[in-house]
Amino acid sequence: MKFTPAEVDFELMVREKIGGNHFSQFVGFDITDIRPGYIEAHLVLKPEHLQQMGYVHGGVTATMADVVSGFAAFTLVKRGQGVVTADLRVSYLNPGIGSIVYAKGYVIKAGTKLHFCEAELWMINENKQRIDIAKSSSTMVVVP
Amino acid sequence: MKFTPAEVDFELMVREKIGGNHFSQFVGFDITDIRPGYIEAHLVLKPEHLQQMGYVHGGVTATMADVVSGFAAFTLVKRGQGVVTADLRVSYLNPGIGSIVYAKGYVIKAGTKLHFCEAELWMINENKQRIDIAKSSSTMVVVP
Amino acid sequence: MKFTPAEVDFELMVREKIGGNHFSQFVGFDITDIRPGYIEAHLVLKPEHLQQMGYVHGGVTATMADVVSGFAAFTLVKRGQGVVTADLRVSYLNPGIGSIVYAKGYVIKAGTKLHFCEAELWMINENKQRIDIAKSSSTMVVVP
Amino acid sequence: MKFTPAEVDFELMVREKIGGNHFSQFVGFDITDIRPGYIEAHLVLKPEHLQQMGYVHGGVTATMADVVSGFAAFTLVKRGQGVVTADLRVSYLNPGIGSIVYAKGYVIKAGTKLHFCEAELWMINENKQRIDIAKSSSTMVVVP
Repeated sequence: MKFTPAEVDFELMVREKIGGNHFSQFVGFDITDIRPGYIEAHLVLKPEHLQQMGYVHGGVTATMADVVSGFAAFTLVKRGQGVVTADLRVSYLNPGIGSIVYAKGYVIKAGTKLHFCEAELWMINENKQRIDIAKSSSTMVVVP
Repeated sequence: MKFTPAEVDFELMVREKIGGNHFSQFVGFDITDIRPGYIEAHLVLKPEHLQQMGYVHGGVTATMADVVSGFAAFTLVKRGQGVVTADLRVSYLNPGIGSIVYAKGYVIKAGTKLHFCEAELWMINENKQRIDIAKSSSTMVVVP
Repeated sequence: MKFTPAEVDFELMVREKIGGNHFSQFVGFDITDIRPGYIEAHLVLKPEHLQQMGYVHGGVTATMADVVSGFAAFTLVKRGQGVVTADLRVSYLNPGIGSIVYAKGYVIKAGTKLHFCEAELWMINENKQRIDIAKSSSTMVVVP
Repeated sequence: MKFTPAEVDFELMVREKIGGNHFSQFVGFDITDIRPGYIEAHLVLKPEHLQQMGYVHGGVTATMADVVSGFAAFTLVKRGQGVVTADLRVSYLNPGIGSIVYAKGYVIKAGTKLHFCEAELWMINENKQRIDIAKSSSTMVVVP
């Protein structure tokens, strides 16, 4: 599902909102795809994103999962509404080793009060294989 | 429970490990208390820690919860062992508004393979009241 | 906090509602304390509550955690409102071995839309010590 | 992926283990498919499976999610090993209304110490449409 021309300013609105998200900018995510109920992003890793063993820090992972899920939910609410995270669970599947973290967030059940979302985070290893680094599930609340 | 003199170098070891945690340093946490199975930290908020509504970003909250929990677990493992997060759940109780985020992480069940941890995050409002902003539970795996 | 005399019929209403909860009755819980935002229950174990290793089945644990948390939230909503579980997380701390499972559920943050709850489940071992078997956190939604 | 003839006794072993799971039998699940890392089950609803509003009880849902996930993980461990649930999260997507609950559990990351699993639960409504009632994620620990 892609935005119709009439919805193009909606994509702009989403981008604008993301632009005001200082911590996402501070960490350095790039949002690469915005569709209704779906967001993709990636992060080019720098030393400040790592923990003491040289892997991607779990906080970076959680932040990225929260951001792609929250904005995926945000694409589905009415103008004037927003979403806040009620609850986020992240499962850390494999250590994050490499140069870019890819993430996609999507709504699995949209409602008037709550949106249930999931996010997948992965990296591409030196053999060009996708390595899943995390999966999240979250409950997002619609707010005025 | 406080470290005995003989354990003072353990506290140093914990601090050293935290020092190698680039993302924690990048975000700017200060670890303020280290005891067996227990860690306290705080974060003086700057604009880069906020989301678009001016509240503490959920990623900052999740990162802080992960760090205080993971290091609380780390204080209990044997020399040469470490811990990694298997899963982390964060419940966002109230919007984070104010100048300092306080966090404590503690082990609720220590084991040889897994440590179950919790973390509490709060702020002090203008009326000097504690406002809980998040509670987390996590499963940490002991690794060699 | 105990119900005042004027609130006695509220306790009755809670008990009545619990009485209509067929699965709780089927499993066999006894609600032993009802206070605003707080519920206690216990379950006298029978063979049907166990899994193949002879421990309390994780589904019994999860059900008990859901019930004491949901009813704890229910004590705080207005007349005519109810609560449903949006999400439930259970951490299984120790195997459940013994004859009675004790549980308490409580609200850690009450709101107009959501209640955040926790539950603790424990057993008493042969040395009269409390053994924690599970801890849960949950998000409950207020419904009309 | 289907078991090869040589693995048929493995399916028997899984079924035998499930047979010893008293609470699953008490609740009344039928395991309908067993493949490596994957389990399907269903439950024909009776009045005792419902809560006070007439929907499937959240404890039934959580139990079914735990069982299909745990056995999915169990299909992947070595002979002599077992799995126990460390942590289970269930998101309740839609109220469960109808006559049969369907469930599938699968391993999303297998490891030597931990298996990360998910489960999906759904029902078929009167218009023959699938209604998702729950999604779970869980962390299972391999035990000797």
